[in-house]
Amino acid sequence: MSIRIIVAKFGGTSLASAEQIKKVIEIIRSDPDRKYIVVSAPGKRNKDDQKITDLFYEWYRLNKLKISASEIQQIIEDRFSEIIEGLGVDFDLKSEMKEIAKNIASGAAADYAASRGEYLNGKIIALALGYEYIDPSACITFNKDGSYHKDRALIQVVLSGKRAVIPGFYGSLPDGSIKTFSRGGSDITGSIVAWAIQADIYENWTDVSGFRMTDPRVVKEARKIYELTYRELRELSYMGANVFHEEAMFPVQEAGITTNIRNTNDPDDSGTFIVMPDKVPETGCLVTGIAGRKNFTVITVEKKMMNQQVGFVRKILTILEENNVSFEHMPSGIDTLSIIIDDTELQGKHEKILSSIEESCQPDSIKMEQSEMAMIAIVGHAMIRMRGVAAQALDALAKAHVNIRMINQGASELSIIVGIDNNDYGTSIRALYDSFSSSHEML
Amino acid sequence: MSIRIIVAKFGGTSLASAEQIKKVIEIIRSDPDRKYIVVSAPGKRNKDDQKITDLFYEWYRLNKLKISASEIQQIIEDRFSEIIEGLGVDFDLKSEMKEIAKNIASGAAADYAASRGEYLNGKIIALALGYEYIDPSACITFNKDGSYHKDRALIQVVLSGKRAVIPGFYGSLPDGSIKTFSRGGSDITGSIVAWAIQADIYENWTDVSGFRMTDPRVVKEARKIYELTYRELRELSYMGANVFHEEAMFPVQEAGITTNIRNTNDPDDSGTFIVMPDKVPETGCLVTGIAGRKNFTVITVEKKMMNQQVGFVRKILTILEENNVSFEHMPSGIDTLSIIIDDTELQGKHEKILSSIEESCQPDSIKMEQSEMAMIAIVGHAMIRMRGVAAQALDALAKAHVNIRMINQGASELSIIVGIDNNDYGTSIRALYDSFSSSHEML
Repeated sequence: MSIRIIVAKFGGTSLASAEQIKKVIEIIRSDPDRKYIVVSAPGKRNKDDQKITDLFYEWYRLNKLKISASEIQQIIEDRFSEIIEGLGVDFDLKSEMKEIAKNIASGAAADYAASRGEYLNGKIIALALGYEYIDPSACITFNKDGSYHKDRALIQVVLSGKRAVIPGFYGSLPDGSIKTFSRGGSDITGSIVAWAIQADIYENWTDVSGFRMTDPRVVKEARKIYELTYRELRELSYMGANVFHEEAMFPVQEAGITTNIRNTNDPDDSGTFIVMPDKVPETGCLVTGIAGRKNFTVITVEKKMMNQQVGFVRKILTILEENNVSFEHMPSGIDTLSIIIDDTELQGKHEKILSSIEESCQPDSIKMEQSEMAMIAIVGHAMIRMRGVAAQALDALAKAHVNIRMINQGASELSIIVGIDNNDYGTSIRALYDSFSSSHEML
Repeated sequence: MSIRIIVAKFGGTSLASAEQIKKVIEIIRSDPDRKYIVVSAPGKRNKDDQKITDLFYEWYRLNKLKISASEIQQIIEDRFSEIIEGLGVDFDLKSEMKEIAKNIASGAAADYAASRGEYLNGKIIALALGYEYIDPSACITFNKDGSYHKDRALIQVVLSGKRAVIPGFYGSLPDGSIKTFSRGGSDITGSIVAWAIQADIYENWTDVSGFRMTDPRVVKEARKIYELTYRELRELSYMGANVFHEEAMFPVQEAGITTNIRNTNDPDDSGTFIVMPDKVPETGCLVTGIAGRKNFTVITVEKKMMNQQVGFVRKILTILEENNVSFEHMPSGIDTLSIIIDDTELQGKHEKILSSIEESCQPDSIKMEQSEMAMIAIVGHAMIRMRGVAAQALDALAKAHVNIRMINQGASELSIIVGIDNNDYGTSIRALYDSFSSSHEML
């Protein structure tokens, strides 16, 4: 008799076809501890394929425009038929589709439509596995304002003692209607289930064997990260490493549960373990990962004796707040201040913000460099104990002829963030990887 | 016939005794362009001596307490008598002292008392030089709120065509009463005079031969800086290099006038030239100076998804503003934010600020490290064009086994600021000086 509980979440590409789902079923059956299975909607089978969730959204939009969605309905039905037949299960797809069509036609919300991919996939996979089907609207609940309503006891009661398949991505509002998390939210559902039932491990099965030390689009041979902490992951994923949903780590982190990122197409690979800080071995590994993002806008304000003016910076931040713009960093010199903003935050507000700052703060000068900067985070829990990481990073960039426009270290003990020109992004990632990947071998 | 105009300001140690003032007179007479002489009150003749200005303040305070100040009056009179006799001028000190005593006794303000050292010294030196005496209350004017009232024309009219001695440090309010600048304000008077009459050069004579590349209390052999820009000086003086009054540079900088810091005791030394950016030669010199200060307090706030909360940082700054506390730097990581504050700003407000932030922002954690950090600025106008300065600095610190707690580069193109433990201050200054002083030779 097993005493461990594993919550296993499978992503869209792991469940895109009967062939993929068969791999998933084999994985689940290979370890009897895998008791709670959270599933996504079928994703893309290849680069040019469509995601079922996108098709459901499209169906919803066409219905709103009073345009026939019959072609889309047919594509959805064909995709699921292939899965049902391939798995050889007895599932009444026709009447399910009819019910969904009826609800969408009579005005069900976008969230309802979007969630039907998970719903159908969950029911089919439960049948194939011989597990119970639990609809998340029975235990994943939201508050009226749309935020997740933490109810550990409800989940425990609904799932207690069962082996179950639970669709990811959605739950229910107080009035019983369907509400979804943000895109990729099945990761969150899995994390909440693991948190609620205090799982021993949360497995997150996807199409890659875990995290790599840096972006493989830039560094093809980038090594796998065997183990990292939640805090390291938070810094890396914020800066662009997006294998795991940004918000999904909080429930498991709160419960102290290890997450294991695994590859459905390579189940023998142990993947990446995301652990709590107290579980991290003392390795000689300096840098865990290097992640970055492009297209940041820099606003630079100069004003003499700025530091003596209490409230100067607060005025600028109030202007950003009034424009609903959040900023990333704010390096300050003497009499100068830069504000670094993700360009997507600024959509069309550039001029308005500039003139408001001019009017309110009367700076000696103000300058905006639009969407010209990239930021790279060098992340590692061992950095705080080791001197010289920053020096090594900057030396690697200098030798690669990269001009460093900003350095930010200090708030987090785990990371150094450098700002560079967009054009230097690839060169910089490569130079940093080359410099730090050898120390990674010491793991 | 000379066509240049030099404004020469002499500081307290340059005018502390008849012997020193004789050197000053010789300096003035050696160049007929030195037409406007701004003087301080007599300063210390040696380490254990008293400044005349301090004695006048003390006189004022004793008078308020209704305690006799006759001993202090006698010390002041003796000091000026020594100067008058040494210079062999005919000056009625007795009646001047009587007039001052009468005014203080009848309730003249502290600023009046404080300004009498400059006043007496100015009159005596004007006599010795054969220059006209111009009282600054006739041309250096303040607004009702105590801020300097810019009136270029007035100064031009009052000084036009003359050779004059003008006491520094004070001027007059709209009601005619005396108002002083902050301590060391004679530097400001000289700068304003140079600005108003569009001098060719502003000479600032003191007891050192200009700026040194770093704090000579830490690095005895620190080299002299031959030339630096106003903006470099601003960054260095903000961080602790205090040969020249922080606010004194603005008028001359505005007028594009070069300032020359000179040593009264070594007039053959050309001193340090402070120039406009467009006058800076393209040298190979990477770093102009290294300056630092100790005792900064660091508040570190952690909150998950902080960056998505528009207004989070603004709330913290509003709390600082309500407590009238200004901050220096604010490095931010993902979900973490540090606020670095000069500890003198926080006097007794630590607990109040911490609890206000807790209440208003509900952070996941908050931590205050009181007065534990030092900051060092590495300043150089050539840095922006040269890659690798930051790498070199951090490498030097790493090799000296200094743990870097903060790095801030980006707002100013002229400086990199590093935060270190107070205890590492001397080691760091020494390591940075050793690393960059050789590149200084390339000047």
